This record gives sequence, C-alpha cells and structure tokens, in this order.
Amino acid sequence: MPQPLAGLVVLDLTHVLAGPFASMTLADLGARVIKVERPGTGDDTRTFPPFKSGKSAYFAAINHGKASIALDLKAEDDRATFERLVARADIILENYRPGVMEKLGYGWDDLSSRFPRLIYGAVSGFGHTGPDAKRPAYDMVVQARGGVMSITGEAGREPVRVGASIGDIVAGMYLAQGVLAALYDRERTGRGRKIDISMLDSQLAILEHAVAITSVTGKPPGPTGARHPSIAPFETFHASDGLFVIAAGNDKLFEKLCLALMLPIADDPRFATNAARCENARLLKRLIEAVTLENTRSYWIQKLTAAGIPNAPIQNIDQVMHDPQILARNMVVDVLDRNGRKAFVAAGNPIKISGVEDRSSRGPAPDLDGNRGEILRWLDGE
Amino acid sequence: MPQPLAGLVVLDLTHVLAGPFASMTLADLGARVIKVERPGTGDDTRTFPPFKSGKSAYFAAINHGKASIALDLKAEDDRATFERLVARADIILENYRPGVMEKLGYGWDDLSSRFPRLIYGAVSGFGHTGPDAKRPAYDMVVQARGGVMSITGEAGREPVRVGASIGDIVAGMYLAQGVLAALYDRERTGRGRKIDISMLDSQLAILEHAVAITSVTGKPPGPTGARHPSIAPFETFHASDGLFVIAAGNDKLFEKLCLALMLPIADDPRFATNAARCENARLLKRLIEAVTLENTRSYWIQKLTAAGIPNAPIQNIDQVMHDPQILARNMVVDVLDRNGRKAFVAAGNPIKISGVEDRSSRGPAPDLDGNRGEILRWLDGE
Repeated sequence: MPQPLAGLVVLDLTHVLAGPFASMTLADLGARVIKVERPGTGDDTRTFPPFKSGKSAYFAAINHGKASIALDLKAEDDRATFERLVARADIILENYRPGVMEKLGYGWDDLSSRFPRLIYGAVSGFGHTGPDAKRPAYDMVVQARGGVMSITGEAGREPVRVGASIGDIVAGMYLAQGVLAALYDRERTGRGRKIDISMLDSQLAILEHAVAITSVTGKPPGPTGARHPSIAPFETFHASDGLFVIAAGNDKLFEKLCLALMLPIADDPRFATNAARCENARLLKRLIEAVTLENTRSYWIQKLTAAGIPNAPIQNIDQVMHDPQILARNMVVDVLDRNGRKAFVAAGNPIKISGVEDRSSRGPAPDLDGNRGEILRWLDGE
Repeated sequence: MPQPLAGLVVLDLTHVLAGPFASMTLADLGARVIKVERPGTGDDTRTFPPFKSGKSAYFAAINHGKASIALDLKAEDDRATFERLVARADIILENYRPGVMEKLGYGWDDLSSRFPRLIYGAVSGFGHTGPDAKRPAYDMVVQARGGVMSITGEAGREPVRVGASIGDIVAGMYLAQGVLAALYDRERTGRGRKIDISMLDSQLAILEHAVAITSVTGKPPGPTGARHPSIAPFETFHASDGLFVIAAGNDKLFEKLCLALMLPIADDPRFATNAARCENARLLKRLIEAVTLENTRSYWIQKLTAAGIPNAPIQNIDQVMHDPQILARNMVVDVLDRNGRKAFVAAGNPIKISGVEDRSSRGPAPDLDGNRGEILRWLDGE
C-alpha cells in the first residue's frame, strides 16, 4: 500500500528547525519535499555542528530525503522558476517573518487567488497576528517567554532549557497537523487553506497541568526537579547505585507498589488517594527511598516490572539509540549518501501505519542546489 | 466555513493524557468526541488536583467539549451499545496495553473486517510490537528511558524532568498526525488504517541534535543547563536584576548583537562562525555578561528588540497567560459549565486556519456518563 501522502508535492521555503521538522514528517508520510534555499549559504543549519566529512549531521538529521534548489526570490529568472514550482505544488511551507512573503508578491492572498488548491503553511515565532507578529524568535526565546523554562529545573536554582528544542519542534508538529487537516478538507472542498502557527502559542498549548494550577490557585507553579506536580509517586528515586524512575499513576498501582516494596502504607490516609499522596509527596519519597536504597537499580527495575509497576532507567542518548525496543520499532534509521552508502543515522518515523512500509533508511540530505537539474527537468514534464 | 473535521465522530477510549490530548486536538479541529469511560471511576485524571467546585481542573483542561458515556466492555448490554457506537464512528482511539482490545474482541483485525472505513488510533507506552510492547508506562517512564532527562538540567547535578508532560503530549500529537494522515488517505482509498504510536518512539523522534551528536562523536551529550549545545550565543544571560535570554542563531544576528552591546568581537576568529562560537561558548558568555550585567533586563530586552535580535524574558505561567501576544492570538480560552458560565480556562487551539472561526470558549468537560441520554438518542436516529 502506498504511503498516505504519496504523490503530493511540498515546496519548502523553511529553514532551521520548526519548518524543516514539519516537512520531514510530511516526507516520512510519503510526500515529495523540494527545499527552496537561499543561494550561496542555504539553510543556516548547514553550518551547525557536529560535522562528518564536512557535512552537518544536524542538517542531515532533519533534511534527509528532501531535494534542494537554490532560488533568489528577488531575481526575475528564479522567480519564474519558483512560480512554476508553486503551480505544481500541493503545499507551500514558509517560516519567514510575517510580511516577507507579501513583499515578494507571494503572500497567501496572492498565491491563493492564483492557485486556489494550494495549502499554505506558515510557522513563525509569534504568528501572523498580534502586537509582536514581526518580532524574530528562536527556540530559546519561546521556551523562556512561553513558560516551560519556569517549570523545568530544580526549585531555588536557575531555570534550565528543555534539552530537546521543543520550542521549534512542537510548533513544527502543529504545522504538520494543520497541513494534514487542510489536506483532508481540500479533498471535500477543493480549496486550500492557510495555516498560521506561532511557536509561542505552541508552547502554551503543551502546558496542561501548569495552566490548570495557575488558573485555579492563582499561583504559577515553579520547577519541581524530577517530580510531577499533580501525580505521586511519579519521580526519580535513589537505589543503592543511582537513580531510577517509579511512576505509580493511580491507587491500584500504588497498592501494588507498596506490596512490592513491603511498605504497609497503602491504607494510610496520608497516602490513600492521589491528592493525599501529592500533599505528602516529600514524606512519601523518603519512605520509599528508605526501601529502595537497600538494593540496586537493576534489582528494583526487575522487581517492579514483574509486579506490573511502571518504572524506568534514566538512559543517555547512546543507550536510547541501542535500546532493544527502539531498535525493534525501527526508530533508528540510516541516512544514505548519493552513492547509497550509510552516511548518518537519524530518528525513524514514530507514526506506524498498518499496511505501509516502515522504511529503515532515508535518502540523502541534499547538497545546496544539488537537485536543480532534476527539478527543472521535472518541471519541463520529463 | 466549517471546521475541517466537522461531521466526523471520534470514539475515544483513552484516558490520562496522551490519548485525550490527541482527541482534544481533533475536537478543536471540529470533530465530535465521545469519551467511553470505565463505569464508577472513569478517567484517572478526574482525581488529579487542582480542583474547583469538586472538579479537576486538570481533567477539564484536556477534556473540554467532549461527551461521556460509561460502558463496561465486558457486559453484554454495554457491548451492544459500544458496537452501535463503533458503527457510527469514523475514528476509534485507545490507549490500553497491547492485547487488551483483542481480548475484548475489539482488536484492529476484528473491527477493521466489520467496519472497513474505521480508523483505529492506538497510543501505548512502547507500541504494539517489540519485546516491551506489553509493559506499562507513564510520562516519567519515557522521559527517563527515552533520553530527554539525560540532556535536561545542569551538568553535574541530578537529571530533571521536562516540566510539561512531553512524554505523553508528543505521543498524543503524533497520534493526531497519524489519524489526520489516515483521514486523508481514506478519502481516496475508502479504507481506514491502524495507527500505532509508542510514547518511547515519540521521545526519540524529538531529540534532533542529540541524535546527531551521539551518532557522529560516539559521545552522548549531557545536560547543558540553559544553553543550546549546537548554537551560540543561545542561552540565558545575567542582567543586573536577573536572567533573560539572547538567541543569536546566525552570523548576521551575532554581528548585530556585538554592535548593540558595543562588544567588538564579531571578527575575532574565536567567534566568527557558529562552530567557533560553540567551541568558545563559555568565554563568549562571560564577555557578553560583562556588558549585560551593567543594565537591567528590561533595558536589554528593549534595546535588543529594537536592534532585531531575538531575546526574551523568562516568564512564569501566570505571565504567559496574560502575555498580550498570547491574548491577541486567542490562546487562553474559557471552558464553560453546563449552564454556559465560565468554569475553567484552558489553552486555546494553536492551529489557526484561514476562514475557520477560532472559538474563544469551549463546551464543558463532561461528567462521568453525563451524556448517556443524548448519545443513546443519537444512536436511535433522533
């Protein structure tokens, strides 16, 4: 069975991470992605470390399998090429600051009147409306302004960023969602739509419990280290040789945990409900650690797993990339070079779809302007 | 123009966060979501603090606008009702452990042969395949095992969790994407598909630079506090009255920053490229802070904003919820009670679509089994 987006063409003017992450998802779902880059330098991430054989592994991790053509959208010839590409595209993606596409004559209104089926996906720091629409942003900017830094880290210490660039990535994921919804809609209406994603909006959208707490109590939560603020026990615990995680998210699991630890507190009113356990979380942690400190992580992980209690080691990235479950799920894929040899590895596609092949390799990350010839031939109808 | 998913029915057997987050997105895009809950207790998050008038704000933040019916899928009568619901549904979502739906007689193979257009979305801790498929998981488990904790926090200190539950939320977002792709596919093939999302897979999928670094250098990165490991300057800096963020993600922005700070180092070979700046990030931070410490956060935010350099305050959740840009984008919405009065607030829909109304309120979060009557009448064709 072909991939769900097979046959669709994405014209991708985005750079850095949020937009390219969205087009990577669309490519993983079967779309053909043509990256339109600035002549001379191309996507900024081509210069981001680490490098292998002079090429950025960072760039490769996000841009594998895409084609590249360098176009100066202010030059007459290149504009003509660009417009021929738009005419063939189902989806155009851009992450310029609001107004830039309009100045080029390629704003949503212009494109939509010429190409009514075109879907236009934009991702920007703050969105295309509102007082700060034109301000520039990067991941760190929206992690800070969007609140996630204020709830990440240890109480009483400086805030830290989330180690993954969720300021970009979550916005890219919402862009992909919006584009997919518009594709479904277009099947029935025959018309494209504009999707306007703001990185700042996207940060607020993932704060769930923090929004609930702030709106009900009036007090914004602070960072809680490794502990979930609304569920207990749900955090790291010390074993004799280091930390591991126990996550007993409901009363039944807590009872099982007490049994496994031989800790007779399941009926104690201080711990009988999740709400009570949250109020007495500090005490609960000490009672549990008084037991877990007496044995190793692997002892407890084996014991709690056998008892059906969610738990985990804290793995570094190398361990994750060699985790048997991750490998069994084809979540580490090879990125090939132009000669079909393995050049990089990248994360696989987490969207597993019945009947659709889950490929274990990806095409190369493109050289800047590296696919100009084939793209022009395709436009000429070869 | 109607919302893109108007007219679609989602039968939602999921509970806690990942699945309900996905169905919230589908509801925000216009689908009708019917929550099928366990009789007696319902969704675990109904007991999660904080509470307002006895109801969980956490539950309301994720389940607004959904309907609820309590069904015991092992009882004959309720099974009949459930099967009538499946027959009317476009999408079924579940987050049981793999095998549970099969035991009930409602696995993908069974349902798909009876209802070939049905889309089946599953989200589980580790996915429906692989050695750990049947193990239970929660957010903390996959944040730990999936690697993000190993790169979040301060070097040399204990790892911390990401303050937002991205273990659940990112998986829920991939589930929504998979369902949307399957909807598009169904328009052309007439057949539904099964989507199998693993929370662990989803964590690996967002690690971008960390995967690149580990695969190229063989050394997994550790936590870097508030600094991005592959871009510099891109972190928090001290002003005279506290921390703020500067994110100068390319050479041009770095030049502008040097100018704004009157720091003549843009041509210094130690800082001339992003790669060089990353190598000398500690020195660079000190040179910049030697300047920024001389004035306040608001002074620098104003000055850098005027110069077009991405920067940000570090806002707490209350500040985010009152941020003028967030309010202008309709990103804080009211959740109404059954009488149409404001009961809670929740994050708005970050997917802004041209021509589609961006509602500023949401229907109530359902009482357990609170919509049984209307759902049964709807099944009877009223």
